[in-house]
Amino acid sequence: MVVFPRAVKFTVGLLCLIPALLPADEGMFPVSEIGKLDLPSKGLVMAPGDIFNPNQVCLVDGICKVNGCTGSFVSPDGLIITNHHCAYRAIQSASTTENDFLANGFQAKTLSDEIPAKGYTVRITEAFSDISDQVLAVLDDEMGFVERTKAIDQRRKELEKAAEQANEGMRAEVAEMFAGKTYVLFLYTYITDVRLVFAPPASVGEFGGDTDNWEWPRHTGDFSFLRAYVAPDGSTADYAEENIPYQPKRFIQVDPHGVDEGDFVMLIGYPGRTARHKTASFLLYEQDVRLPFIVDLYGWQIQQMEAAGKENRAVALKLTSRIKSLANVEKRSRGQLKGLRRAKIAAYRADQEAQLQAYIDSDPDRQKKYGHLLSEINNVYSEMGDAAPFELNLQNLISASRMMNLAFTMYDSAVERQKPDLERESPYMDRNFELTRKRQMLAQQDLDPATDNLLLSGMLDRLAPLPQAKEIDALRVAALTDELRSNYLDSMYAQSWLIDKNFVQDGFEKTPAELKNLDDPFLNWVIELYPHYLELREKGKERNGRLDQLYGNLVSIKQQFQNASFVPDANATLRITFGSVKGYSPEDAVYKHPITSLKGVIDKTTGQDPFVTPQKIIDMYAKREFGRFKNEKLGDVPVAILYDTDTTGGNSGSPILNAKGELVGVNFDRAFEATINDFAWNESYSRSIGVDIRYVLWITGDVFGAKHLLKEMGVD
Amino acid sequence: MVVFPRAVKFTVGLLCLIPALLPADEGMFPVSEIGKLDLPSKGLVMAPGDIFNPNQVCLVDGICKVNGCTGSFVSPDGLIITNHHCAYRAIQSASTTENDFLANGFQAKTLSDEIPAKGYTVRITEAFSDISDQVLAVLDDEMGFVERTKAIDQRRKELEKAAEQANEGMRAEVAEMFAGKTYVLFLYTYITDVRLVFAPPASVGEFGGDTDNWEWPRHTGDFSFLRAYVAPDGSTADYAEENIPYQPKRFIQVDPHGVDEGDFVMLIGYPGRTARHKTASFLLYEQDVRLPFIVDLYGWQIQQMEAAGKENRAVALKLTSRIKSLANVEKRSRGQLKGLRRAKIAAYRADQEAQLQAYIDSDPDRQKKYGHLLSEINNVYSEMGDAAPFELNLQNLISASRMMNLAFTMYDSAVERQKPDLERESPYMDRNFELTRKRQMLAQQDLDPATDNLLLSGMLDRLAPLPQAKEIDALRVAALTDELRSNYLDSMYAQSWLIDKNFVQDGFEKTPAELKNLDDPFLNWVIELYPHYLELREKGKERNGRLDQLYGNLVSIKQQFQNASFVPDANATLRITFGSVKGYSPEDAVYKHPITSLKGVIDKTTGQDPFVTPQKIIDMYAKREFGRFKNEKLGDVPVAILYDTDTTGGNSGSPILNAKGELVGVNFDRAFEATINDFAWNESYSRSIGVDIRYVLWITGDVFGAKHLLKEMGVD
Repeated sequence: MVVFPRAVKFTVGLLCLIPALLPADEGMFPVSEIGKLDLPSKGLVMAPGDIFNPNQVCLVDGICKVNGCTGSFVSPDGLIITNHHCAYRAIQSASTTENDFLANGFQAKTLSDEIPAKGYTVRITEAFSDISDQVLAVLDDEMGFVERTKAIDQRRKELEKAAEQANEGMRAEVAEMFAGKTYVLFLYTYITDVRLVFAPPASVGEFGGDTDNWEWPRHTGDFSFLRAYVAPDGSTADYAEENIPYQPKRFIQVDPHGVDEGDFVMLIGYPGRTARHKTASFLLYEQDVRLPFIVDLYGWQIQQMEAAGKENRAVALKLTSRIKSLANVEKRSRGQLKGLRRAKIAAYRADQEAQLQAYIDSDPDRQKKYGHLLSEINNVYSEMGDAAPFELNLQNLISASRMMNLAFTMYDSAVERQKPDLERESPYMDRNFELTRKRQMLAQQDLDPATDNLLLSGMLDRLAPLPQAKEIDALRVAALTDELRSNYLDSMYAQSWLIDKNFVQDGFEKTPAELKNLDDPFLNWVIELYPHYLELREKGKERNGRLDQLYGNLVSIKQQFQNASFVPDANATLRITFGSVKGYSPEDAVYKHPITSLKGVIDKTTGQDPFVTPQKIIDMYAKREFGRFKNEKLGDVPVAILYDTDTTGGNSGSPILNAKGELVGVNFDRAFEATINDFAWNESYSRSIGVDIRYVLWITGDVFGAKHLLKEMGVD
Repeated sequence: MVVFPRAVKFTVGLLCLIPALLPADEGMFPVSEIGKLDLPSKGLVMAPGDIFNPNQVCLVDGICKVNGCTGSFVSPDGLIITNHHCAYRAIQSASTTENDFLANGFQAKTLSDEIPAKGYTVRITEAFSDISDQVLAVLDDEMGFVERTKAIDQRRKELEKAAEQANEGMRAEVAEMFAGKTYVLFLYTYITDVRLVFAPPASVGEFGGDTDNWEWPRHTGDFSFLRAYVAPDGSTADYAEENIPYQPKRFIQVDPHGVDEGDFVMLIGYPGRTARHKTASFLLYEQDVRLPFIVDLYGWQIQQMEAAGKENRAVALKLTSRIKSLANVEKRSRGQLKGLRRAKIAAYRADQEAQLQAYIDSDPDRQKKYGHLLSEINNVYSEMGDAAPFELNLQNLISASRMMNLAFTMYDSAVERQKPDLERESPYMDRNFELTRKRQMLAQQDLDPATDNLLLSGMLDRLAPLPQAKEIDALRVAALTDELRSNYLDSMYAQSWLIDKNFVQDGFEKTPAELKNLDDPFLNWVIELYPHYLELREKGKERNGRLDQLYGNLVSIKQQFQNASFVPDANATLRITFGSVKGYSPEDAVYKHPITSLKGVIDKTTGQDPFVTPQKIIDMYAKREFGRFKNEKLGDVPVAILYDTDTTGGNSGSPILNAKGELVGVNFDRAFEATINDFAWNESYSRSIGVDIRYVLWITGDVFGAKHLLKEMGVD
């Protein structure tokens, strides 16, 4: 990987917010920081410079982003290993009633058998550079908050455009490392021809389902293989038969021996979002307002969809992916709520802030400059908390219902696309528009009008009693009697163009006036509601502008208060985290070992979904046909491993690497207690979960006979 | 304790059914077997002869039965320690809105403050003797099955009556040790003046509630103190002010030091029922028929009662005790179902039986005598399985509804009490009648007519579709439309005498004709249904007669097949079991330590029922005021302990005794996996749970200041 014009500087003069919560192992470090981590003293055997070095090809070049997940190249021919749940949509959309790859698994015997993974992109980080000065140069002290936000936003877009013009075929993205302070420009290669190579049956890849999700001990074979393809000339290109496997600059060597308890491991990947540097007032907003709202709303949506699915199998199949995704967030949110309440994280952080405040108040100049800083941040969250019942419900009105979401996105797109490209909301810029349209078309495939109607009606129930909603004429339908409203919504679904899949592609080409002329009930309603959503959007920008500036100042004053290294919050850019294979005690008198075994799969198997196991595995277990993947200590095939690295969503599919940088597993989840990683990392409960490479290889090669893939990975 | 005329012989020539499931620690041994157990080699320090010796006062004389539980005398003045859940009804009925002892706990500062524990009896085993010959002498080969059952039944009653006449003031009970083979006559002292001395608040005594019930790790202070009183002359007597504390022949010394992991422990108590010697066909009947029925029916009843309680706090208070008891059985049944299915216990036992069958078939004489034995036993269970939907629902029609139960018991009693005493069903014999009537009066206190109506209606819903029910004219109300039936049931509740508490005492004095003349809707209906219940009762006797004879033969042939000691199933008679303080692994990669701590109580405390903790405990924990009860290894007060002794229901309240026979805890539950103890014991999952004596003493003395009780127990 190349670092262009200047190297990134993250730690210069920055400091640690809560030292007591930051033992040696915390941190999703930007890979540029690798030299400062002293990994050899932690157990690393390879040279840190072989993991990341701006001047040569190195280990990180073997890592890619696969949609929202991470993947690893594990052969010179673009073979990628990631999670089953990351490849889920590809497997689902390749499946038919006759060839149900979700149920039966999939295996391409040759390259030509590989199936296009529709909607998948593989992103490879090519280079990056700190451009904070160029971004912040557009600000001046006279600007209001909305103006600031818009100015930074536009500047980022300009810099991205310029970088893309200078680097043909690459995509540029500016990432905010510290709000209002540090910005890094990343250059990426985007591969758009991705194909499905191997997937175990869902009974292996999703074993335990929602019941086991976010839980340890785990027995899920959550892995799949994909392959990246490029045009014959090596340039990126959409799917074409003549495309050839992509040759990564580097691939990760698989180590079939796996790891043992206590062994050093490191993960490289694209963690999504964390909030380690936010204030206690933010944590209280999450704890008291947003998370309870999500748990309640999503729990109710899941219940509605499950009930609908029980009556009709075809409907159930349509809704399964959405239920899965909501259930994942709902359970994570429950874990976070439990963790926030039990660990009293907000109180702890408030205590740290009181110390900071005392430091500020102890000097008149500091007091003058920063005295109101924390209370101003608190004011923003307090305002958000007050507005939440109305704003969150209004926001979810256009996400709980797919029809409303489609109508809104279509109209919003039409309005935005009349502006110059750089002034549009990001999803509607030329570079993102196709993806936005594709996503709506994919979402449309899962639409079940009756269920959608239920969800829409439920959102109106929630809005109806709120005073702010009563004042909005466009929400008058919420106030109708049950019967009248039900008739009204039924007629909307009966009359809408949007219910027709073929219309969606065209609809995104229309102007606002043309959409208005269609006289579609959903579009009409969204057009009437639109000013209120614009208001929400502006309010959001105003708050972000305030927060960006305030958090920028917070970083500055914390820097004065205490000196320590400071790791930016996760932001879907390339990070490295390290630790070891390690059990934990989630509660008094309970200890959980860090390696599970095939015996545990058999023990959990009830024959009832989600605890079904293919008969072949049951038979091979009975005959103890573990081959070379048997671990002598367990006397069994290891299935999943637990380790104390620092991960979050987006780390799904990240390689688990041993001290030599070889792949020994694939990360796919966290323990329930570790759902609060997003807010605070802690040695005693922050544990991540991966599938053991020995289980991957045993399932792929021994159980399902794809020995050619083992050979391709150099495992003979 | 005295063993009169002859010592009991249990093991002579008897043998072990499933040796592989019977490691050293299995067994609820009759105390007379103590000499054969070689306890000193297992860690016992005291002389086995001091635990039980027919010729002198010994440790077992310090143990008593407290209603359905076990208790220990822990002072020379009749102070008894047992579980909070065993004293629950006493605490509940002593509570008023002003003095809510359930919520706040109770403490008598002096003897005169102790409150009568209404409906409580304390039973002390005084002597026992094998009387199998005298019982079996009444049988002859010509008898049918019903005749056999009745003959044995009547003979037992005659022998009990004779023993009571010969031993004034004592109560005699014949216990069946091996069906159709071994009978032992026990002589008991029954103490009927029992008083409440100390109970912690429910937040301690029931901490974790139904959520934690049947679970480990546990943090419940499930203990209370009662006291036994007798007349000034030492004879047993009902409550009277002049009664004096009972002086037990022996009391158990409390050891405030408690135990550590690995230490020897033994329990003495009155385990209720096990089915270790029943066939695979019985296990399948439980697994496929009875347990799923119970889980479904009780789950539904609990749901109905909880819903009713949510709307009305007064109703909730009435129903709480019944919900608690149903929830306990429901969860235990779920655990048993899970255990039976996972551990494949029925398949394992069938395998053993196949070996026995092969042994039988290998000899023509044996084949002739025993060849059909197993299949005949199977036939009984198969018949029971077929009849179950109808019979179980019909049986529950008069138990789900308290009104139906009262009407049935009253009428049944009137009919039976016209017979000579020895020919009556046991609950209506003169010696039991008062208890039967008292129980109905207590049950009547919890009656909520609206909920009772719901439960009755639900039972009719279950009966309605069954062909056998459709043929019964007395069940015609089940076939009515919802509306008609609802009106009909409403009018029954509105018109019945039985709704009036004052009527119940009188009603039990009436003859069948007098009850008929009352023209009460519930009594009328029960009278019409009565022949069908008599039929069920006769069928039950016929099946028991067959099974008794068949199981008697099964014991004989198993005796020939293999030689090993053979422990009779639990039958609420005095038993001893031993083992050690020991953790376990309930599932792959999970290990549970055997001692919990106060820290765990604090961790679990959410402030929401059932995880509330008195502020005083939270404060004392924060200040680490553990006094002498701190365990150095934990750095904390131990709360509950886990051990691998062999227990079942009825062992609630059993003393946990150390190697010197001192009390180190009070048994109160089993781990979820150990719910299948009733069917099979296993070293890897059979674990019982007790409250640690250090927690008992810390709560009693340090937290609630009842230092006088510690002094009375000799803990200064």
